[in-house]
Amino acid sequence: MPILSWGKTYRLPHFYQDASAAIIVTIMLIPQSLAYALLAGLPPEIGLYASIMPLVAYMIFGTSNALAVGPVAVISLMTAAAIGKLTQSGQVDYISAAVMLALLSGVMLLLLGIFRLGFLANFLSHPVISGFIIAAGLLIATSQLGHIFGISASGQTLPALLVSLFDGRDDVNSTAFMIGCVALIFLIWVRIGMKPLLQACGLSSSLAGNISRAGPLLAVFVSIMVVQYFALGDSVAIVGTIPQGLPSFTWPDLSLDMIEVLWLPALFISIIGFVESVSVGQTLAARKNERIDSNQELIGLGAANIAASFSGGYPVTGGFARSVVNYDAGAATPAAGGVTAIGIGVATLIFTPYLYFLPKAVLAATIIIAVLSLIDVSVLKNSWRYSKSDFFAIFGTIIVTLFMGVELGVSFGVSASIALYLYQTSQPHIAEIGLVPETQHFRNILRHNVITSPIILSLRIDENIYFANAEFIEKLIQDRLEKSPNIRHVVLNCTSISLIDASALEVLESLNSFLKARSIGLHFSELKGPVEDRLLKAKFLEHLNGQVFLHHFEAVSELDPKTYINQKALAEADQSAHDGSHI
Amino acid sequence: MPILSWGKTYRLPHFYQDASAAIIVTIMLIPQSLAYALLAGLPPEIGLYASIMPLVAYMIFGTSNALAVGPVAVISLMTAAAIGKLTQSGQVDYISAAVMLALLSGVMLLLLGIFRLGFLANFLSHPVISGFIIAAGLLIATSQLGHIFGISASGQTLPALLVSLFDGRDDVNSTAFMIGCVALIFLIWVRIGMKPLLQACGLSSSLAGNISRAGPLLAVFVSIMVVQYFALGDSVAIVGTIPQGLPSFTWPDLSLDMIEVLWLPALFISIIGFVESVSVGQTLAARKNERIDSNQELIGLGAANIAASFSGGYPVTGGFARSVVNYDAGAATPAAGGVTAIGIGVATLIFTPYLYFLPKAVLAATIIIAVLSLIDVSVLKNSWRYSKSDFFAIFGTIIVTLFMGVELGVSFGVSASIALYLYQTSQPHIAEIGLVPETQHFRNILRHNVITSPIILSLRIDENIYFANAEFIEKLIQDRLEKSPNIRHVVLNCTSISLIDASALEVLESLNSFLKARSIGLHFSELKGPVEDRLLKAKFLEHLNGQVFLHHFEAVSELDPKTYINQKALAEADQSAHDGSHI
Repeated sequence: MPILSWGKTYRLPHFYQDASAAIIVTIMLIPQSLAYALLAGLPPEIGLYASIMPLVAYMIFGTSNALAVGPVAVISLMTAAAIGKLTQSGQVDYISAAVMLALLSGVMLLLLGIFRLGFLANFLSHPVISGFIIAAGLLIATSQLGHIFGISASGQTLPALLVSLFDGRDDVNSTAFMIGCVALIFLIWVRIGMKPLLQACGLSSSLAGNISRAGPLLAVFVSIMVVQYFALGDSVAIVGTIPQGLPSFTWPDLSLDMIEVLWLPALFISIIGFVESVSVGQTLAARKNERIDSNQELIGLGAANIAASFSGGYPVTGGFARSVVNYDAGAATPAAGGVTAIGIGVATLIFTPYLYFLPKAVLAATIIIAVLSLIDVSVLKNSWRYSKSDFFAIFGTIIVTLFMGVELGVSFGVSASIALYLYQTSQPHIAEIGLVPETQHFRNILRHNVITSPIILSLRIDENIYFANAEFIEKLIQDRLEKSPNIRHVVLNCTSISLIDASALEVLESLNSFLKARSIGLHFSELKGPVEDRLLKAKFLEHLNGQVFLHHFEAVSELDPKTYINQKALAEADQSAHDGSHI
Repeated sequence: MPILSWGKTYRLPHFYQDASAAIIVTIMLIPQSLAYALLAGLPPEIGLYASIMPLVAYMIFGTSNALAVGPVAVISLMTAAAIGKLTQSGQVDYISAAVMLALLSGVMLLLLGIFRLGFLANFLSHPVISGFIIAAGLLIATSQLGHIFGISASGQTLPALLVSLFDGRDDVNSTAFMIGCVALIFLIWVRIGMKPLLQACGLSSSLAGNISRAGPLLAVFVSIMVVQYFALGDSVAIVGTIPQGLPSFTWPDLSLDMIEVLWLPALFISIIGFVESVSVGQTLAARKNERIDSNQELIGLGAANIAASFSGGYPVTGGFARSVVNYDAGAATPAAGGVTAIGIGVATLIFTPYLYFLPKAVLAATIIIAVLSLIDVSVLKNSWRYSKSDFFAIFGTIIVTLFMGVELGVSFGVSASIALYLYQTSQPHIAEIGLVPETQHFRNILRHNVITSPIILSLRIDENIYFANAEFIEKLIQDRLEKSPNIRHVVLNCTSISLIDASALEVLESLNSFLKARSIGLHFSELKGPVEDRLLKAKFLEHLNGQVFLHHFEAVSELDPKTYINQKALAEADQSAHDGSHI
């Protein structure tokens, strides 16, 4: 338990740091937890409940000193998507499904952590995650426009949401719209104008920054006042009664039916939650030259979600913006989360009656402003410049998420990353190589002025040989030989080959017979030790119509001494020449 | 159209060769086409129809001189599995579904061929295909035991078939059982004893071989005689009336419902059919030093399946055993298939009434004997020896196919191959390397006696860096540095790296900052040209906390001259030493 290691050295100064960070995070988290519960389609108190026990559990089992666990936008959207489909068909009760989703996701994360399977998260490529988050942000912002207009907008995809907004055009509630727009404008000003103004008033940069974090809470406070004072409670959608008091222990409804329909969405939520959390955790740890242990993080997040489910909450993870605030505000240990939990607990005990008149439009405005910061299109620009195939994976993920929903979006992202990688390796770069004069080094004949032999085809295969590319390589060699009927030897330079799988072995056997039938030798040079060991074990090298050479130069000078023998003497006389050569 | 190229040089001797091969294939194909239709759950004439027009279409569009197209066992099983599920729920008519399956599969193959996507078949690894075929063979043989026992055995999985056989234990038809057993024993004798006997009687080896191909037809003939003579038509299941005459043009039922439920099974059938066909085609072409064009093969098989659907047939492909017989019998061009089509056409016109009394048990016996030759467990033994991960993929494919059906079996095989490859590359081999004394070559410090520097960590990464392994590599480097606090430079030797994707670039950026914060340099040596070009374009090398070296020796001798400078002189003095070194 990580708490035992940092707990031993925990001193009062740590507590001051953690507590001051916790106050700021609490101020930020109160409106967020209400808003994200709204986004997830849950009553507001569920958001508060998800911000108490999970934080305590993460404090005990987590490793990140800065991560602020709790409800987050993308996971709330995924929760809504997962449960929305099921409750439509009347299969399950909404709140029990949310609680179950937290339990399943917690158990999955815990098991992944215990079995040290954190590396599985690596199969989601970073750019694809970024694309997914952009699309999820757009979906969230669009879904919240309904609350701003005072109409009900529902749907899991962008077209469905837009149609639903359009259908409600005659029911726009002008009071809600006014309140929503004022809140949006105010929150945008908080983001860009408040801190400079406070600094101009003489406040220090960090104090000004911290006060501006209270912007959303201020919007909540003022809007409650306005609704109450002008008696608008009947004309706009308000939060209404929130039960006062701490969450009680709940026992999730462990029906097999529920597990059967929720395990897959829970898996998606676990993966996305873990990846989001671990990447912000790593980023913040790196700033302090610390590291986090991703398997222990899985255990920490698993415990947090299990705690969420037993205290009537819904799936949680480490939020990006909130963790950055926690870090900037000086959180020194995971205890900051524990103090935040106390803050939210106190709020739940005391302040919930005062939230009765809070307009939903204001919560929607806080969500819209929060998710707009997630929409960072620079990943599209960067990947377009660096790698077209990554760009298409990201772009496809965005499109599928927007038009077909979050679950298909994640699935598409994972499949596209894997498919593109396999596609790239299925048509590997194969360089025909020749000798750099007066050295023993071989380089691509297309990039360098090199010496080649008329009877040897020297190929450097820049990839493992495996099922997806073995036949491509075989075909390329056969095509190449058709063009040069004088070739008597094929020498494969294997510096880049770390793996030859069973399919590739079959293809090499077939290539060997093909070449043997034409009296052409098949040779290997610079085979890596483990690869050669396995080829020997498979008895492939026994009937190889050629030899295995340690060095490529050795191969060509033995197979075609006429062309190369003089080069050897030259190379020995002028070894220093080779330093300047280049692949 | 390939027919135009071989047609131009087609002469009478070719026709003699093709016709004699066609006679033997026709004799073999008559009982097979009836039997495979039975296996697919279709009336026997559908098997004959699938052996006429598809062969003509393949003759026009196909490239293999030896491939014998028509109904085959595995595809028939897959057809039965695909349609069986649907007709149970009463969604579709069995025969229209089979015709539709041929059309969809034909269109898919044609499109893959036109868009030159034949390489996609490479994503099915050979060993996995072998495993799938073993399991399919076992399923087929078990399903046919029902006909031998004279009871109805149905089911898509081995347990279902066995339960269904066991449930029918009280209804065993002893007449069918007798006929089936005699046919089985006779067919086994045909396989092993007939040819030697005929040779002992003085016939030439090839004549004896060709006569023994008629074994199944002889079994058919004799069993019809026996059933008719002893009037067993009422006591055993017989084929019954087969409509006389050629297939007429049929227009597939193009309902969207049908397409929606059949497209996925059609895709599986296309892939398995293509892979089976192209591998036998390639093997036979290689024996004559010919090659086949896999994209043109897709077009040929696509045309064959479309022809099947428009002439009331069901999915076809190139069969393994039949193509080998066609090759051995001397088929010289695709015209052999056309002549076979004429043979089957004549049989359909004239002989079908005589097949009335043919017992289904005899057809089942011919199927059992045919598929037992598919069950070759050497692939399990070989892969166990060569590669445990391939072994597990094959073994898993067999188990899933047997216990969960053919479609899940194929899906499992594809997923397992890809997952295992990604898993292997996600934890790449990373060798710490040192200088082989008196050379400029670097080798793994664990395998060789080499010189290392106390301040440089030299690592050779034996894999592309991409999303699935980038963080593994970063973590490994960080772990390694924790153990050696004196390290001031990390030099990554990139000879095996052909690809650094966008995720990997992000991780390298983070590694670069991590090392920079600790004042440790990050250097690259022997970067391949295209990889360096892309890193430059992404501006990564601009803020790299280190240098890019052309050679690893150059890197270490510049970064730690104290350790390496003398080695340079030694190496130059004794260059010849490096020839004997080894990775």
